[in-house]
Amino acid sequence: MSVPVTDPDAQAARASASDPTGLHRVLDDAVVLPQAAQRLDTRRELWRDEVRVRVETLNLDAASFRQLEGKHDHDGAAVRREVLEIVAERGKMQNPVTGSGGMLIGTVDEVGAESTLGLAVGDRIATLVSLSLTPLVIEDGLERWDGRSEQVPAAGYAILFGRSIAAQIPDDLAPGLSLAVMDVCGAPALTARIVRQYDAPVVAVVGGAGKSGSLSLAAARREGAAGTIGVVPHEAEASLLREAGLADEVVVADARDPIALRDAVTGAGGPADITVVCVDVPGCEGGAILATAERGTVIFFSMATSFSAAALGAEGVAADVTMLVGNGYTPGHAAYAMDLLRDSDGVRRLFERRL
Amino acid sequence: MSVPVTDPDAQAARASASDPTGLHRVLDDAVVLPQAAQRLDTRRELWRDEVRVRVETLNLDAASFRQLEGKHDHDGAAVRREVLEIVAERGKMQNPVTGSGGMLIGTVDEVGAESTLGLAVGDRIATLVSLSLTPLVIEDGLERWDGRSEQVPAAGYAILFGRSIAAQIPDDLAPGLSLAVMDVCGAPALTARIVRQYDAPVVAVVGGAGKSGSLSLAAARREGAAGTIGVVPHEAEASLLREAGLADEVVVADARDPIALRDAVTGAGGPADITVVCVDVPGCEGGAILATAERGTVIFFSMATSFSAAALGAEGVAADVTMLVGNGYTPGHAAYAMDLLRDSDGVRRLFERRL
Repeated sequence: MSVPVTDPDAQAARASASDPTGLHRVLDDAVVLPQAAQRLDTRRELWRDEVRVRVETLNLDAASFRQLEGKHDHDGAAVRREVLEIVAERGKMQNPVTGSGGMLIGTVDEVGAESTLGLAVGDRIATLVSLSLTPLVIEDGLERWDGRSEQVPAAGYAILFGRSIAAQIPDDLAPGLSLAVMDVCGAPALTARIVRQYDAPVVAVVGGAGKSGSLSLAAARREGAAGTIGVVPHEAEASLLREAGLADEVVVADARDPIALRDAVTGAGGPADITVVCVDVPGCEGGAILATAERGTVIFFSMATSFSAAALGAEGVAADVTMLVGNGYTPGHAAYAMDLLRDSDGVRRLFERRL
Repeated sequence: MSVPVTDPDAQAARASASDPTGLHRVLDDAVVLPQAAQRLDTRRELWRDEVRVRVETLNLDAASFRQLEGKHDHDGAAVRREVLEIVAERGKMQNPVTGSGGMLIGTVDEVGAESTLGLAVGDRIATLVSLSLTPLVIEDGLERWDGRSEQVPAAGYAILFGRSIAAQIPDDLAPGLSLAVMDVCGAPALTARIVRQYDAPVVAVVGGAGKSGSLSLAAARREGAAGTIGVVPHEAEASLLREAGLADEVVVADARDPIALRDAVTGAGGPADITVVCVDVPGCEGGAILATAERGTVIFFSMATSFSAAALGAEGVAADVTMLVGNGYTPGHAAYAMDLLRDSDGVRRLFERRL
């Protein structure tokens, strides 16, 4: 149901003030981008470059969900209550501790006259910008969610800004599968770009049996890695990753133990020219740096990464490594990740296990 | 005064357990690197690959000092008390809020038989690894320091590990000047490397009149930047930077205001192919991303950088930019920075003003 803007004067005033970054919806006193804001304006009415989406499912970021689960000792009702409180208070789903959000699936409800996202009313889409900057209203109290999984059935609406990213959900994949792939599609795209900058590199992926990890392993192999090493926390995940056939070597190590991680990767054909960190636990910076060869690159995709631990950690061991903040956006990232999944039974099986 | 290890058995036991990263001095229960540790072992006796240094001066990291100053409302005695408490408790000077440390000047007191750092007793050196991972004992209660500046006269000792970095202090530069240059020498070295990866890029340096900022501007020009833009917070710094002659354009903007920073850089010949963030205030991630061209690079040198704000900020505005964690170590970084300073009167004047 589209609610048109009926007052032309008010519409003109808002239109003149809108910014493609969404700045016009920030309610904080300081001028900050929506991602850094404490509170967003969630009004239904659109600025002329915006799009409104009717929400079906939220997919909470893994680091955020784990923090909430831990804080509330796996009490699903308490987790649900806190998510509702956060969204009501902030006008967006941004975990105040991890700073992260997640993404959503929905149907386009109304498209502003000046939107350039290429969407039409009725399109079924996933948003590829974080929930941590997306104006969001929940209207059903999350009554269909037990608070025990990252996928949250929800009714309500969300707003996309002028400069945003949304991808149509492919017809040939189940929506939940598409959402899970899109949620992490920045990782394989950036991994692929970095692999192409080296000549037949050795690539280690910490958290190789996870969603972003398995896609990153598949991307590394496709782009010409000479060897791929998957690091997992225990034997059960090692078996899964071996069955999936995505890594030349699979090793078990606690990524928070820097010496154990260094020794595991070195023993499996490393040090790695490229180390990709895909595990959402704090304290993996030191091990990732030590597992990486001189002039190598570490890509941090985990939202649990500490900037100062990475910067000072590398300096502290005189490591000449390039360290990248894992940017969730690379052009074409969603299509690239979908293609990896369609191409690889191993990736697909790992994903389907986690749905 | 060197205190030799007299018990051969004890020495052998320790020697067998030492690790070049300094892991053997971590007192935490968990296996973490010294930088991530809560407490370090500060015993005077050396493992065989270590070096002990008699401390003359500590140079606190700017972000750390600013945090302490703010917390104690510029009460120097209270700042001094907290620094003493931190060092006594943790066995290292690591600000618990910012996670950062600083560096020190001293004289080599004893060199372990298996050290590979190339140092000799009596050498006057600066340590180029962070104080946040350096075992440190203060023996004079910091009685010669008023708690009001980052440079702290101190008596005591510090330990360097097997894999560490220390540079001899050049004869032709005042020690305080050398220390100030070495403290930030990672920034110009990494900036230079990235500039060489582009073809005549436009380089913007946020905090261009500061220590790491002015050296980064000089490095960008030396390595062939087509244009350099220095961003400063107010007119007084703008005058200083214009007089120094280090940037083609000097603009005033609040780096925490993303739209202001974007517009300032764009108006001065940007967007930048490379944006270097050298200001130690939180909240500059969004503006740096928006000031940078597609396929450009942002280098974050500020310890106040938030990993998640950077990662989600770029994704949130669909920015295809490479974001680097500013690694404080690049081979040859100290010599490169000293050379920039010797070569540029402008850099030298800015540094001498701040001593």
